[in-house]
Amino acid sequence: MTFSVQVLGSNSAIPTLTRNPSAHLLKADERLFLIDCAEGTQVQLRRFHIHFQRIRHIFISHLHGDHFYGLIGLLTSFHLLGRKEKLHLYAHEPLREIIDIQLKASRTTLIYPVVFHPLPDFDQQVNMEKLYEDDKLIVMAFPLVHSVPTCGFLFKEKPGPRKIRKEAVAKLNIPVDRMNRLKAGEDYTDDQGKVFRNAELTSDPPSPRSFAYCTDTAFTESILPCIRGASLLYHEATFLKDMATAAREKMHSTAAEAATIAKLAGVGQLVIGHFSARYDDAAPLLAEAREIFPDT
Amino acid sequence: MTFSVQVLGSNSAIPTLTRNPSAHLLKADERLFLIDCAEGTQVQLRRFHIHFQRIRHIFISHLHGDHFYGLIGLLTSFHLLGRKEKLHLYAHEPLREIIDIQLKASRTTLIYPVVFHPLPDFDQQVNMEKLYEDDKLIVMAFPLVHSVPTCGFLFKEKPGPRKIRKEAVAKLNIPVDRMNRLKAGEDYTDDQGKVFRNAELTSDPPSPRSFAYCTDTAFTESILPCIRGASLLYHEATFLKDMATAAREKMHSTAAEAATIAKLAGVGQLVIGHFSARYDDAAPLLAEAREIFPDT
Repeated sequence: MTFSVQVLGSNSAIPTLTRNPSAHLLKADERLFLIDCAEGTQVQLRRFHIHFQRIRHIFISHLHGDHFYGLIGLLTSFHLLGRKEKLHLYAHEPLREIIDIQLKASRTTLIYPVVFHPLPDFDQQVNMEKLYEDDKLIVMAFPLVHSVPTCGFLFKEKPGPRKIRKEAVAKLNIPVDRMNRLKAGEDYTDDQGKVFRNAELTSDPPSPRSFAYCTDTAFTESILPCIRGASLLYHEATFLKDMATAAREKMHSTAAEAATIAKLAGVGQLVIGHFSARYDDAAPLLAEAREIFPDT
Repeated sequence: MTFSVQVLGSNSAIPTLTRNPSAHLLKADERLFLIDCAEGTQVQLRRFHIHFQRIRHIFISHLHGDHFYGLIGLLTSFHLLGRKEKLHLYAHEPLREIIDIQLKASRTTLIYPVVFHPLPDFDQQVNMEKLYEDDKLIVMAFPLVHSVPTCGFLFKEKPGPRKIRKEAVAKLNIPVDRMNRLKAGEDYTDDQGKVFRNAELTSDPPSPRSFAYCTDTAFTESILPCIRGASLLYHEATFLKDMATAAREKMHSTAAEAATIAKLAGVGQLVIGHFSARYDDAAPLLAEAREIFPDT
């Protein structure tokens, strides 16, 4: 099952010729989840040949322009291209009106349904709230530390069905419906009443994968319980550590701080982004993070 | 004196990998006037190496997204890049609130002044209204025919100073301040009281140039008095003439209609744009227009 993240923009604040601001696409199985949507995101989606009408869920971390100015254009393009499928939008409450008054000004009524899910007010408590759940995936929100209310997101696969050990079941002639119960973890009892323990006939499924998304945020250990052990962590790294003071003032992180969070949280891999436009080349940011967390 | 137009986007409705939606830059002398500002315009400005902090006046023809979704990002970038100069914004009234609530959501107070000039309500009368005037240029608005209130714009140079005929003034030893009066059209009287007619000492300045901007609009001869004799006309040409019915329904124009307007108005040159995304190649649109108005 696919579980991959496509970075559509790695710049902070301002789009440049080489880097778009924040937008990320999680592909989980056949589903596409868009996370943040800076100006230019719809063109980035085209550039990467992503069939963007398949996006059903969009998550906006916070209402700084470099995370949502591309949303209204994407919603309008969905409309112009004849979308029918419902779209779920998870964002802080003011975005609802920002969208509405722009559609009103252009006398547009979207031809597809948009379900707006306001993000929780966390009130600086470290806790998590479930935003979405289906048979394969769960999405949680948690608070980050920034100059406006900002949510991190955790996308977490549910454990898959247990794997049938073909050689073990070969001679048992198990009916299809019983196979499904085996995959769900039940033991198997044959017609003669003989019981086969589940562990004899199946093996563990692949470990569920998870993706934690943390931008924008100052360095904060408060997020560790929310992201611990994630397979992949995206953490902003706006500055190099020689600008740690600026990072703190602007409530952003350095590459070293992003890597420290990755290390403390014991994640599998780290992706950094949201780089200040002052860095034409992101290599020094990567090098700084790898000193602390090699798998960046 | 420079008087040139840079097309920053020639697509309608939706940005694609090859064409951005509407945005145009008029360079008149040292001044930059931005006309419409679709999503992606600030990156287009960078691509064409335009020092965009020099833009002092932005005109938005109407409030369909493909003409203004890039504005909030450009305003924010001006702010983040430390702009101090006043910006004049000419647009229909609802845009003021659209900007304000987005800045409010991000808790941003722009560090430079924006003067919002609401565009007139023309009430379907064919008339013109002056939006802007300085020593060299005048900008007028006039109504177009579209599904939301839409303005065309006419940018018109004022006549320059008369040109001194060097060979005629060579022996007269005219003081500098009198030179300026000569350039303004006065006769010259020398110390002996001898009168030299202005026409003996000067020649006509270059003809004032003008740029008429007409998008989005259905074909309408009502605009002819407003754009007659313009040096350069930009007129939308969303469709080929085989889609004239669709053009009429959507209140857009065909390339043939754009060219017909150019011909009827006796303009110098025509630029077409706002092409439907259905046309990968704009060449057939150009060919259709040139059949009627060769200097397209």
